[in-house]
Amino acid sequence: MSAARQVVAIGNAIVDVLSHAKDSFLEQEGLAKGSMNLIDANRADELYKRTGPAVEASGGSAANTAVGIASLGGSSAFVGKVCDDQLGEVFTHDIRAAGVTFDSAPITGGPPTARSLILITPDGHRTMNTMLGACVELGPEDVDAALIESAQVTYLEGYLWDKPKAKDAFVKAAGIAHDANRRVSLTLSDSFCVDRHRDSFRTLIDSKVDILFGNEHELTALFEVDSLPEAIDRVRGECEIIVITRSDKGSLVLTGNEVHEVAAEPVDKVVDSTGAGDLYAAGFLFGFTEGRHVAECARLGSIAAAEVISHIGPRPQTFLAELIRK
Amino acid sequence: MSAARQVVAIGNAIVDVLSHAKDSFLEQEGLAKGSMNLIDANRADELYKRTGPAVEASGGSAANTAVGIASLGGSSAFVGKVCDDQLGEVFTHDIRAAGVTFDSAPITGGPPTARSLILITPDGHRTMNTMLGACVELGPEDVDAALIESAQVTYLEGYLWDKPKAKDAFVKAAGIAHDANRRVSLTLSDSFCVDRHRDSFRTLIDSKVDILFGNEHELTALFEVDSLPEAIDRVRGECEIIVITRSDKGSLVLTGNEVHEVAAEPVDKVVDSTGAGDLYAAGFLFGFTEGRHVAECARLGSIAAAEVISHIGPRPQTFLAELIRK
Repeated sequence: MSAARQVVAIGNAIVDVLSHAKDSFLEQEGLAKGSMNLIDANRADELYKRTGPAVEASGGSAANTAVGIASLGGSSAFVGKVCDDQLGEVFTHDIRAAGVTFDSAPITGGPPTARSLILITPDGHRTMNTMLGACVELGPEDVDAALIESAQVTYLEGYLWDKPKAKDAFVKAAGIAHDANRRVSLTLSDSFCVDRHRDSFRTLIDSKVDILFGNEHELTALFEVDSLPEAIDRVRGECEIIVITRSDKGSLVLTGNEVHEVAAEPVDKVVDSTGAGDLYAAGFLFGFTEGRHVAECARLGSIAAAEVISHIGPRPQTFLAELIRK
Repeated sequence: MSAARQVVAIGNAIVDVLSHAKDSFLEQEGLAKGSMNLIDANRADELYKRTGPAVEASGGSAANTAVGIASLGGSSAFVGKVCDDQLGEVFTHDIRAAGVTFDSAPITGGPPTARSLILITPDGHRTMNTMLGACVELGPEDVDAALIESAQVTYLEGYLWDKPKAKDAFVKAAGIAHDANRRVSLTLSDSFCVDRHRDSFRTLIDSKVDILFGNEHELTALFEVDSLPEAIDRVRGECEIIVITRSDKGSLVLTGNEVHEVAAEPVDKVVDSTGAGDLYAAGFLFGFTEGRHVAECARLGSIAAAEVISHIGPRPQTFLAELIRK
C-alpha cells in the first residue's frame, strides 16, 4: 500500500523546448496561436531547424500540475512515460527533485522522450508543437492500483485521449479511483483536443469526472455553442465541480446551483503563458484536498498561475508555499 | 577559403544545467563559490541527484562569446566538440540558430556531450561543475586553417588548457592566426584554471597573446601577488591590450602606457552571473573588430554583460544589436 497522497496526476511526460518567435513565424508555419499541435519526428526536425535558440525545461501538463502541488507543500505523484535517454533523465530528475513521486519505468530503445517545441510570441502566448515519442507507450499496465487508491484525487489530462493505450490507462485509473471512493478530475487541455474527442469527452464527463477544468474555448467547443453562458447552461450539473478559467478575466467555479467568480492575480507582464492552466489546477486541487472552500481554491489557482506566467518555463521558480503565505 | 569573420572562438561545447541552490548546499558539497570544478561522470551523477529542478541552456565560455558577437550584429564562428546525442543536438541547434557558424564534426559513441551543473546562489553568483565529456576529443585536426586565417581575432578560453589534445589545438590555432597577421585573444577563464596552468599561461601570454581578458582573481593568481596594482605592474606590456574585469566595479583596459577605466552598466538585480565574463568579451571584441576605441569596446562589453546577468542562462535573451543602439 502506497503512502496517502493528495493528488496522483497521469499525463504525457514531456521536455519543453522554449524559444521566442514572431507572429509572422506562426503564420508561415500555419500554426494557430495558443494551440497544441501533434507533430511527428520529421516535422519536429524541420521545425526545430527553423526556430531560434531555445532553453529546455521539463514540462507536460499534468506533470506541471503535480510539481505545482508539491511546490505548494502538498503531496503528489506522477504517472507518465519517458525513454531512457538524456531528455528522459532530465525529466525524471526534475520532477523528483521537485518532490513528486515518479516511479513509472522508462522504456528502453523505441521512440525518444517526448518534446514540445514551444514558440513564445511577444504577447507572452505560447503555441506548442509536440512530438509524443515515448508517451505513446503509456498503457493500463502503468497504472498502479494502490497508488490511485491512496490519492484523494486522480487528475487526468485530456491530451491522453490522443492515444488508444493511454486512453485505456485513463479509463482504468478512473475506475480504480471511483471504486475506492476517490475523486476523478479532468482537464480538457485544448480546444483542438476537444474537437478531436468531443463525443468521448462528453460521455466521460457525464459518467466519470467529478472535478472538471476547462477554459472558455474548450467548453464552447465541447458543446458546439457560441458563448460561455450557453456552455455554462450545458455543463452545469454534469460534474460535482466545474472550473472555468478565463485568462486575465479570472475564473468561475460552478457547484450545484452556485457560481463563484474569482479575479485573476495581477501580473506586471505576461512573459510566457506556458503552464498557466496547469498551475491553476495545482493551486485549486491543493486547496480542495486541504478542505478549503472552492472560492479559496480558485484564489490559490490564480496565485500559482500568476507566478508561472511571469517567467519563461512551465513550472514554478519559487516555492509557492511561501508565496501563498504572503 | 572561408568567408571573412570578425571572431573565431575555440572552446568547450557545453550544455548548462542551471539550478538554484543555497549557500549551505555549496558548503556541504565542498564547493568554492564562483569556481569552476572539473568533475567525472560518477560525481556528476551524484551531484545531479542532490540538486533541485533545473533548466538546460546551451553554454560554454567561448561559445557564449561567439553567440554574443552574433547577437551584436557581428560575424563569428565556433570550434568545439559535441557527441551526436540529444544534448549535442541541442548545443548545435542553439549556436547555429544564434547565427554562429559551427561546423565541427560531432563524435559518434564515446563520451557524451559535456554538461555543467551550475548552482546559482541567492546572491546571483554561479558555481560550476563541469563534466567535459566529448570536449576531451577536441584536437589539432579540428582546427581549420582557412577559418582561422579568415578571422580578425582568434579567441581561446583558458579552460582548453585542461586537456592535452585541446591545448595542442589551441597552440596550432594561435600559430596559424599569427602567421596570417591576425590577433590572438585569451581569457584566463578561472583562478583555479590559472593555478593549474600558471607557468604555461605565463609563457603563452608573453609569446602568443595579443588581447588578454582576466578578472582580478585570475590576474593575482597568475603572478602570485596579493593585490591588483601589483598584478597590473607585472602584466603591463605583456600583451597589446589587457582587459581586467571587476564585476560591479567595472573594468580596466591597459594599452601601452595608458589605462582606461570604464564603469559597469547598472542592473536592477543580478539574477544569474553565468556568462558575464563571456558576454563582456563579446562586446569588447565586437567593438575592437569594428575599429572602435578601447574605452568604447569596454563600454560595449559592460552593456552585453549587464543583459546576461539580468536573467537565468549564459546567453543573451534580447538582440544585443538593438540594446547598444539605445
